[in-house]
Amino acid sequence: MAIGSEDLSLAAAAASDASDPLAGLVDRFVVDDPDLIYLDGNSLGRLPRATVGRLTEVVQQDWGAGLIRSWDHWIDLPAQVGDRLGAALLGAGPGQVLVADSVTVNLYKLAMAALDRATAADPARRVVVTDDDNFPTDRYVLAAVAARHGGELRMVPSDPVHGPDPDRLAAALGPDVALVSLSHVAYRSAAMVDMAAVTEAVHRAGALTLWDLSHAAGSVVVDLDGTGADLAVGCTYKYLNAGPGAPAYLYVRRSLAEGLRSPIPGWFAAADQFAMGPAFTPLDGVGRFAAGTPSILGVTAVDGGVRLLAEAGIEQVREKGVALTTLLIDLADARLAPLGFTVASPRDPDRRGAHVSLTHPEARQISAALIEDAGVVADFRAPDRLRLGPAPLSTRFVDVVHAVDRIAELIASGRHQSPTGRPVSPPEA
Amino acid sequence: MAIGSEDLSLAAAAASDASDPLAGLVDRFVVDDPDLIYLDGNSLGRLPRATVGRLTEVVQQDWGAGLIRSWDHWIDLPAQVGDRLGAALLGAGPGQVLVADSVTVNLYKLAMAALDRATAADPARRVVVTDDDNFPTDRYVLAAVAARHGGELRMVPSDPVHGPDPDRLAAALGPDVALVSLSHVAYRSAAMVDMAAVTEAVHRAGALTLWDLSHAAGSVVVDLDGTGADLAVGCTYKYLNAGPGAPAYLYVRRSLAEGLRSPIPGWFAAADQFAMGPAFTPLDGVGRFAAGTPSILGVTAVDGGVRLLAEAGIEQVREKGVALTTLLIDLADARLAPLGFTVASPRDPDRRGAHVSLTHPEARQISAALIEDAGVVADFRAPDRLRLGPAPLSTRFVDVVHAVDRIAELIASGRHQSPTGRPVSPPEA
Repeated sequence: MAIGSEDLSLAAAAASDASDPLAGLVDRFVVDDPDLIYLDGNSLGRLPRATVGRLTEVVQQDWGAGLIRSWDHWIDLPAQVGDRLGAALLGAGPGQVLVADSVTVNLYKLAMAALDRATAADPARRVVVTDDDNFPTDRYVLAAVAARHGGELRMVPSDPVHGPDPDRLAAALGPDVALVSLSHVAYRSAAMVDMAAVTEAVHRAGALTLWDLSHAAGSVVVDLDGTGADLAVGCTYKYLNAGPGAPAYLYVRRSLAEGLRSPIPGWFAAADQFAMGPAFTPLDGVGRFAAGTPSILGVTAVDGGVRLLAEAGIEQVREKGVALTTLLIDLADARLAPLGFTVASPRDPDRRGAHVSLTHPEARQISAALIEDAGVVADFRAPDRLRLGPAPLSTRFVDVVHAVDRIAELIASGRHQSPTGRPVSPPEA
Repeated sequence: MAIGSEDLSLAAAAASDASDPLAGLVDRFVVDDPDLIYLDGNSLGRLPRATVGRLTEVVQQDWGAGLIRSWDHWIDLPAQVGDRLGAALLGAGPGQVLVADSVTVNLYKLAMAALDRATAADPARRVVVTDDDNFPTDRYVLAAVAARHGGELRMVPSDPVHGPDPDRLAAALGPDVALVSLSHVAYRSAAMVDMAAVTEAVHRAGALTLWDLSHAAGSVVVDLDGTGADLAVGCTYKYLNAGPGAPAYLYVRRSLAEGLRSPIPGWFAAADQFAMGPAFTPLDGVGRFAAGTPSILGVTAVDGGVRLLAEAGIEQVREKGVALTTLLIDLADARLAPLGFTVASPRDPDRRGAHVSLTHPEARQISAALIEDAGVVADFRAPDRLRLGPAPLSTRFVDVVHAVDRIAELIASGRHQSPTGRPVSPPEA
């Protein structure tokens, strides 16, 4: 590894920053308070400076001046940005990724399509498999989709640190399984599932895979085409820096698209949108999973984030993410373990995304006090987790050292025992 | 009427502008090209000046500086703006309107919930009724929802000018009908359906109503609570001036909410969002129809448009809309009928929304030529319609006179017979 060090000093961190090929990108983000250490890039990524200008242009020029005429170029944006996103971050060839809707709605569309297809071929194949620590919206939506097909959601036990148990997952893959849907990187522990191995096992069992890439895209190297993944969804407001509630994306493997129908046949998915004819005929390819009018401001912001990540190169982003989280874990072992913290993310960097979870019995109060008293933003996840997300594009190695210093100082002072505010428990999980 | 005149001269139109209580609001919109006459406010409304500033604040202050902490106030926005929208424009008391997703997705959620409820009580009640000229995405989605419940979409014939035939609609309301879904104002003809009468008839038949308000909200007086309407959806990029692909809204009558379940149980609809527990328990009220993370930029822009309309007052907006469209129809009769145009919108203003449809055998070429050669933006709808939408907040009476002048001059010159560009056939229908 080009960057990172076993030396936990501030000087060593500064040396890592000096040799970090991505160091210059930190300045491409808006930083309002230089003293604030922002370790919540895994919830809501920072604002890229270029996005401010692009949004202003789209609002004032495209909307304000161009008015309806701007649909001439807007209409192709969701697929164009989807292609760029797929190429830069997902290992997906063109025509397979679309920017649209929210993760929840996209997950619903793809899961319904997969179950419709499976039950049409074999009515007994109506079970959806996930793990019991998967993100709430995933579990809720998958359960509803399975129930609507007369099936059930089979939840594989998940280790709180290491994620879904591979043996239990393999054992769950019976002939009744239509779909296996997992998060590639777990939202709490950052445990990373082996996409290639799981996909192969799922295909052997005659089922499809549906990956939630929300915590993976832009932080680890994803290879959807290479692993043979079938379907995927993900958000753009974390490592893709597209802003609060920016539209999500979905991936449908090219060879699979025409065999699937969206449950929500919106007019943006129609083969001839302006014929407005009596019957719905879907587009070929991933476009058939569009629904209503796409958010043009949202897609513009997604494009801004994707372009920054493409410029950085996902391999370098991943390398820096490993180095930052390794430093954080080493510092936590050395300085925070004596204060009651336990590392609750995988220690093997090949099994870990780009954030680190620490448990502490007072995590809730600590999260609140950190932001009020210590200028560190990290978030809380029930019941006892502090999540630290040093987003590779916008975080320096010295930030990690300073953050651990501040956490240790806060605990030593006891000030966290009477925070006046709320913990950070954001919706952009 | 305080404004409008039977005198079709430019001087009379200028006098109408002088006495128009809303005249000052025209200047609250960005106008890049003062010579352009924009009659497509029914597709994509103009950009309010205040929205430019609010979006910049939300991007730079809330996102850029506040970062994840801004979710403290963002999280309540979709319901707050929904309440303001409901009170100002929909005749809806608080807790019944939510800004979320697209019209297509909202229509799907509400139609599925209605059919789930109906078929649970009576498996034979699984037909959805609409009209054969309803907007394409409505017809496509309603057909899919009916089919998923083993039912069918029953399409009442619609007169191309006057909309769904009331007698044929009444005849369609058999005991097998679960849901009747109509556009309150038709997207092509602007024909307005009598919401109170239809709702009463539908309720007598034991079914629910689901209104698409996309062309009605912000242009006519809507009274959802007063008419006893059950469900409604609508877009915000037309008369609400919220920009391309801004989020839509949905309405669920208060007394009905707890009897309905969204088919897409996303985490934003969970009673305790951050418990992230094993099972999904929906919020009480309309919030149970939320899904994923809402677009904060989008909801901000919706708020901007709603505030402008609230300031104007929907009764005054409606009055001006009637006057503008009456003037346009009178001018069309006097000056465009001899050139081959026919008015294809209701002449009775009580049966008409705020746009006017004209047919002409060369409508496609005329739409293209108007924008290229004549500085008039109006849109084309297959096969032969020119739609003219003089949005009341941003259009002057003199604009209407000038537009008709330019159309007449274009046709007289024959220049429309060889336009070099494309007709305006925008997705924001």
